[in-house]
Amino acid sequence: MFPMNQWYVAAYAWELQDKPVARTILNRPLVLFRTVAGEVAALDDRCCHRALPLSCGIIDKGGIRCGYHGLLYAPNGQCVEIPGQARIPSKCRVEAYKVAERNQIVWIWLSDQPDSEPTSLPPEIAAHDDPRYKYKGGLFHYNAPYQLIHDNLLDLSHLGYVHLKTIGGNPQIHMEAPTRVESDDDYVRVVRWMKASQPPATYSQAWPFKGLIDRWQEIDFHVSHLNIWTGAVDADTEPLDNPNRGGFHMRGFHGITPETETTSHYFWTIASNSHPDRPDMSELVYSQTEATFAEDKVVIEAQYQNMCRFGDLPMIDIHVDAGANRARRIIDRLNKAALQS
Amino acid sequence: MFPMNQWYVAAYAWELQDKPVARTILNRPLVLFRTVAGEVAALDDRCCHRALPLSCGIIDKGGIRCGYHGLLYAPNGQCVEIPGQARIPSKCRVEAYKVAERNQIVWIWLSDQPDSEPTSLPPEIAAHDDPRYKYKGGLFHYNAPYQLIHDNLLDLSHLGYVHLKTIGGNPQIHMEAPTRVESDDDYVRVVRWMKASQPPATYSQAWPFKGLIDRWQEIDFHVSHLNIWTGAVDADTEPLDNPNRGGFHMRGFHGITPETETTSHYFWTIASNSHPDRPDMSELVYSQTEATFAEDKVVIEAQYQNMCRFGDLPMIDIHVDAGANRARRIIDRLNKAALQS
Amino acid sequence: MFPMNQWYVAAYAWELQDKPVARTILNRPLVLFRTVAGEVAALDDRCCHRALPLSCGIIDKGGIRCGYHGLLYAPNGQCVEIPGQARIPSKCRVEAYKVAERNQIVWIWLSDQPDSEPTSLPPEIAAHDDPRYKYKGGLFHYNAPYQLIHDNLLDLSHLGYVHLKTIGGNPQIHMEAPTRVESDDDYVRVVRWMKASQPPATYSQAWPFKGLIDRWQEIDFHVSHLNIWTGAVDADTEPLDNPNRGGFHMRGFHGITPETETTSHYFWTIASNSHPDRPDMSELVYSQTEATFAEDKVVIEAQYQNMCRFGDLPMIDIHVDAGANRARRIIDRLNKAALQS
Repeated sequence: MFPMNQWYVAAYAWELQDKPVARTILNRPLVLFRTVAGEVAALDDRCCHRALPLSCGIIDKGGIRCGYHGLLYAPNGQCVEIPGQARIPSKCRVEAYKVAERNQIVWIWLSDQPDSEPTSLPPEIAAHDDPRYKYKGGLFHYNAPYQLIHDNLLDLSHLGYVHLKTIGGNPQIHMEAPTRVESDDDYVRVVRWMKASQPPATYSQAWPFKGLIDRWQEIDFHVSHLNIWTGAVDADTEPLDNPNRGGFHMRGFHGITPETETTSHYFWTIASNSHPDRPDMSELVYSQTEATFAEDKVVIEAQYQNMCRFGDLPMIDIHVDAGANRARRIIDRLNKAALQS
Repeated sequence: MFPMNQWYVAAYAWELQDKPVARTILNRPLVLFRTVAGEVAALDDRCCHRALPLSCGIIDKGGIRCGYHGLLYAPNGQCVEIPGQARIPSKCRVEAYKVAERNQIVWIWLSDQPDSEPTSLPPEIAAHDDPRYKYKGGLFHYNAPYQLIHDNLLDLSHLGYVHLKTIGGNPQIHMEAPTRVESDDDYVRVVRWMKASQPPATYSQAWPFKGLIDRWQEIDFHVSHLNIWTGAVDADTEPLDNPNRGGFHMRGFHGITPETETTSHYFWTIASNSHPDRPDMSELVYSQTEATFAEDKVVIEAQYQNMCRFGDLPMIDIHVDAGANRARRIIDRLNKAALQS
Repeated sequence: MFPMNQWYVAAYAWELQDKPVARTILNRPLVLFRTVAGEVAALDDRCCHRALPLSCGIIDKGGIRCGYHGLLYAPNGQCVEIPGQARIPSKCRVEAYKVAERNQIVWIWLSDQPDSEPTSLPPEIAAHDDPRYKYKGGLFHYNAPYQLIHDNLLDLSHLGYVHLKTIGGNPQIHMEAPTRVESDDDYVRVVRWMKASQPPATYSQAWPFKGLIDRWQEIDFHVSHLNIWTGAVDADTEPLDNPNRGGFHMRGFHGITPETETTSHYFWTIASNSHPDRPDMSELVYSQTEATFAEDKVVIEAQYQNMCRFGDLPMIDIHVDAGANRARRIIDRLNKAALQS
């Protein structure tokens, strides 16, 4: 079961061009496509005639056309043409979903109420359209449930053990970093400061630090996605609670969309700024971030496979779990409320 | 469940040479082989000593010899030698099946009655031994139940959407072709005429048509196989109901043998005639037919996978489904009758 | 279910160097490792914090360190360090298993009693440390239950059908070899003599026999492993019951360790002696043995897959099954006794 009445990431805008995309989201097999007119659309991925996935068809004027017998469906799910047949039964339609495009992210509104209208705009991912940053994104398919990815992102103390070669650094410093956790009904914030620490490899390559750095991690958890703002300034040059502080910045966007109960889509982008004295390092930041997230994927999938092997044994909490546990309580509460309503 | 007391295609004659062939047919794992004396045989593929598949053994004088301890089985299933042991228990035997070879097809009689004798000769596939034709065949394994292949073959209107590059042509013409459907208790015939139409790519390459063509499709469905006679003459030169009409002919044989409830063997051959002014095009016709059937396989397997994903949702019939629906009623009736007997 | 209170082979000594090894043994997913101090250890392969396999971690001073958040476990299973946290909960531990290293084999004691102490030393495999022999070993993973490997090794009559190219020889001679079977509560011995027979290919290459040979096979079955002593002398030169007889000797060790109910680890080594007039042939003996055991694997996995396909049908015994059937009765008796206790 998944939190409903939420905007989830369905796709990147650039994925939807002249071909339909098949993607299962919260157990629903969907076809995502962009119409000839440029609008994004999401339908159940099943022709109601003989059940071929509509994603095997083609985008055509007016909608998407099935690749078996040519039935044409409008973005609202209604079949509007059956080749060779004048009458179109009113039942000849498929479920359509609300989608919206914002900052190059295609969001889908999923609800447990039929014909539910979104109660908000989709989230803004400002760094995607901020001229100070360059960004690039990737998509990982996970053989693991979505909450294990939340856990991983809400606890960045693992960097010292999992990501030694890129953004890690000294493990002990990570495990002992002062950490502040705040939360409300649908939001968790974890802030960690590592003052006067050695810059990790990625940081040194991307920014001309003079020596030790004051490093921050600000993790904002929302039900369907996280924003993680990390970066550093030269040690003792600026307060880390100044929202307009300088230095090197990485703004990560993490859309965690359940595919099924046990598999997930992980959409991630990383935006970074450039120092005037350094050529643009955004491609390096992107590729090292990708390498880092691939390391997380290995760990999380091994973790999940092991949870399946060993079954439902107790887990012992340690000090780093505070943020992740609050996020789990939010998801639990939303799921329980849905069961009771 | 499958219609019983039928001849099903088990193999091509040329598959059975000096090595046994393992093939599951209607859920029965069988070994098919040709004896040293040249007869075809079919046995349960399990040595009754320690259960090794007999198909792991070798063909030897008198039958097939197990590859583990050398037990020798005659084509009637009786063990006739246990190396190193004088006495052969009478229980030391495996089930044998009735098989027959006709027109280079090896048929197997499958019945729900023990020791049932076939009530007919196996079907004749005359084009295989007709000097006017050259033919060649292929075998596809399908991850889809057999009736989806019936549906596909009984409705050739899909050619315009699925087979654009070869035997398709204008989709609208296909969807609007006048179609006649006849049937009786174990037989469906679908006849479609596309008069004054553009010849599709395969036709133009194989035959020197002058311009537009009158094209026919005659589909004869039987419970275990279909014969599909397609072809064309120059437009307005000959009536399409003349059984001896000229022009370009393709005679397809389609043996659809269930492997399990959800997987199938699809044996197909295509026989074509040659125009005196053109070199033999039968290899071209074969290879384009193979490409076409590979396209069908992609569609049908995607369709079945989608039926599994979405579960048992209603399907909406359209005008092209008449023939396929009658074939489904024949199979349903045979299966229900078997349940009641 | 498996016989408990036994030493099973867990690994070869040379597998445990500077990296942990993940291996499931009798349904328990374990991490095997050698400490910095050189001791072997076996733990449940699951960090009790967030369930990552410990085999994804690293060997560190004092034990094994988890690759996610750095928890350190001692060889007795106790967590001895949680980075960044002073207090270690007493529950923060994993199950540890008794292991012992002897003759380059790492054995694990598996019991159905908590904290059970081994009732014996692990078995001695003397040929591994006997200067007259050179040996080398391999490890096969089997998609088949362990008892099918017992069956195969306790009946060497299959050599003539399965291993024609190496250690086989004339199948009829194998099937008719006089065979003596002895057993007690936890032990079966099968002795077969093939006098005045042609040497098989491997024998001729490894030893300068003058012509026909007197060949022996002595198979000693124990619950978790077999020792198979095979070899030959020139025909009519020495009695085959002289324990100090000369000629060519192959001493096989076969550790059959269930992975799960349906899969197995097969550890095997082969030790052979060299004739003074021939260069060392132990590498040839090893590689031909490996080829032979690969042939067995094909047969046994095909056999098991077929048993799954056909279900629980009766099997008919023949004369060669006496040894294997006694071994099965030993396993059955141990398993039944465990159920009643």
